[in-house]
Amino acid sequence: MLPEPVMVRVKEEFLNYGGLGASVIEISHRAKDFVAIVDGTTSLFRELTGLPADYSVLFVAGGGRMQFSAVPLNLIGRSPSRKALYVETGVFAANAIKDAAPYGDIKVLASSRDTGFDRIPTIDPAAIDQDASYVHITTNNTVYGSRWNTFPETGAVPLVGDQTSEILSRVIDFSRFGVVYAGLQKNLGPSGSALVVIRKDLLGQALPVTPLLLNYASVDKGNSLVNTPSTFNIYVTWLVLQWLKEQGGVAAIEAVNEKKAKTVYDVIDASSFYKGVVQPEHRSRMNVTFHLPNEELLGLFLKGAGKAGLSSLKGYRDVGGVRASIYNAMPLEGAQALAAYMKEFERTNG
Amino acid sequence: MLPEPVMVRVKEEFLNYGGLGASVIEISHRAKDFVAIVDGTTSLFRELTGLPADYSVLFVAGGGRMQFSAVPLNLIGRSPSRKALYVETGVFAANAIKDAAPYGDIKVLASSRDTGFDRIPTIDPAAIDQDASYVHITTNNTVYGSRWNTFPETGAVPLVGDQTSEILSRVIDFSRFGVVYAGLQKNLGPSGSALVVIRKDLLGQALPVTPLLLNYASVDKGNSLVNTPSTFNIYVTWLVLQWLKEQGGVAAIEAVNEKKAKTVYDVIDASSFYKGVVQPEHRSRMNVTFHLPNEELLGLFLKGAGKAGLSSLKGYRDVGGVRASIYNAMPLEGAQALAAYMKEFERTNG
Repeated sequence: MLPEPVMVRVKEEFLNYGGLGASVIEISHRAKDFVAIVDGTTSLFRELTGLPADYSVLFVAGGGRMQFSAVPLNLIGRSPSRKALYVETGVFAANAIKDAAPYGDIKVLASSRDTGFDRIPTIDPAAIDQDASYVHITTNNTVYGSRWNTFPETGAVPLVGDQTSEILSRVIDFSRFGVVYAGLQKNLGPSGSALVVIRKDLLGQALPVTPLLLNYASVDKGNSLVNTPSTFNIYVTWLVLQWLKEQGGVAAIEAVNEKKAKTVYDVIDASSFYKGVVQPEHRSRMNVTFHLPNEELLGLFLKGAGKAGLSSLKGYRDVGGVRASIYNAMPLEGAQALAAYMKEFERTNG
Repeated sequence: MLPEPVMVRVKEEFLNYGGLGASVIEISHRAKDFVAIVDGTTSLFRELTGLPADYSVLFVAGGGRMQFSAVPLNLIGRSPSRKALYVETGVFAANAIKDAAPYGDIKVLASSRDTGFDRIPTIDPAAIDQDASYVHITTNNTVYGSRWNTFPETGAVPLVGDQTSEILSRVIDFSRFGVVYAGLQKNLGPSGSALVVIRKDLLGQALPVTPLLLNYASVDKGNSLVNTPSTFNIYVTWLVLQWLKEQGGVAAIEAVNEKKAKTVYDVIDASSFYKGVVQPEHRSRMNVTFHLPNEELLGLFLKGAGKAGLSSLKGYRDVGGVRASIYNAMPLEGAQALAAYMKEFERTNG
């Protein structure tokens, strides 16, 4: 789901971008009009996040998952140990560990697998091997519906954060991270590309086998235009960032997101019918997950929801139950409609 | 440039795809409506090309250039020699050689660099080291405007063809190739993804350091949906293939392309004012390149062309002069307008 005004604008100017008589997907990526879009997108991202000057903003081909390979390719060689520490907090965190395996000595620093990924593990700073190349966390876990409220202290070891499912949904101190990446398709734009934020001193340490277009230093040097990138994806991201600025920026959308999440969690907390998947202190604000008493009631719940215009509520196969994704583009009314439906469903079926 | 009817349809259904009440860029890549698009696209590609059954059709993140890394990552390990043979016929062929370097013993089998890339070198089949993992050619050279009319005999060594700038523009016997790849943005769709055709026996030999999403076997196994791909790009490609079928298919568009190219080359051949960059027998049908007598006349030519609505004619920086790209979506009238302008310009400035 992308913001409605953005979608309308893409449609309106699809055949004639900026009065050029051609579509934005037809102009050359080297044309000044397109370079202006790339520059406009990165500078707006900087403005919205208050990004420190010693960080670069890149667009890289492939979604978040391509970064599961790109991160070790770019960073694992920075320490002779070729050791990287991963925190396993859900499905995508586990995939990141799996995809990193060919590149070095991948250690699971902590995991909440034993408790069904119902929490974020506590990290003892003393447990961070200072010889490691980086520490990887998934700041918001889409499938289970958990998030890191505060980020672990990793000393001189760079912290890498997969923010695919929560980027720009809350105020984050980017200086806590060496690298942040996010597939575009949750809060930024269409699928198929990722945005990467990297502290500049971490550039230039990629393994020799790193594909040119996954090498952050090459992409940085070429202003994300080394080759023809997904021009449409960058353009839509630019419009989404403009929309976000019009909403008042990240702090303003965070306040709305808190309200949306609270609206749904309050129903869960007031009920003995619905059971939240995640411990309250680790709850995601983007993905609200809960179970119903049994599979039959779950089926009824999802069917009724579909009829009421509330779609895509089925939980991921590993978890089951219900998952409500309430990304930036979802208005408060969407969360309120879900909460009302939940209450009514409990009243008639509880 | 994409076909006008395709662009109009994308615009029309942008906010409501197939009556679903959501944009095609908002539906899940696992939704049955999107899987139908992927399956429809690959089966239409098979139908249009008469692709043998023992080939797979894949969508891979990144454009043609990402394949410059993906090809060696997937194929160079198939021979213990880790040797690959490349034919250097232009700018992108040279970049393919450069990007492959980290993965093995990359040999330049032949090059036309010494003659300014004005031709396709002749390949002696006896010169193909049968111990090599593959032979790589660029079937159409966008920058210099040359193409391979016939493909080299490589024996048991798989031939890999970069067809980015000519795919589906002419009838090709795909069984001559082990792998064919093409960035979408010339004849297929928007930029940022590539279509890869691979003979199935070549799957499963990737180097261990191959990123999951560049591993052709993984992408094949996942039906190009291992992760969230660029759904918009696949969707537009599907529409372009439908349009191509309506035009009568590849043989029919090839006849139009021959006519378009002849229209412009005839002006060059009848003139002592314009000089073609490439020897007549190696001329591209997609990119017509020529020089004017001097830089001053070139400047006048380009300026006048822009006023006459003929844009993007400036030659690539390595070649200079004029390059007219007449991809599938360019109608015959476009080539005729260029030819008429060239004649008139020669009459008044020659």
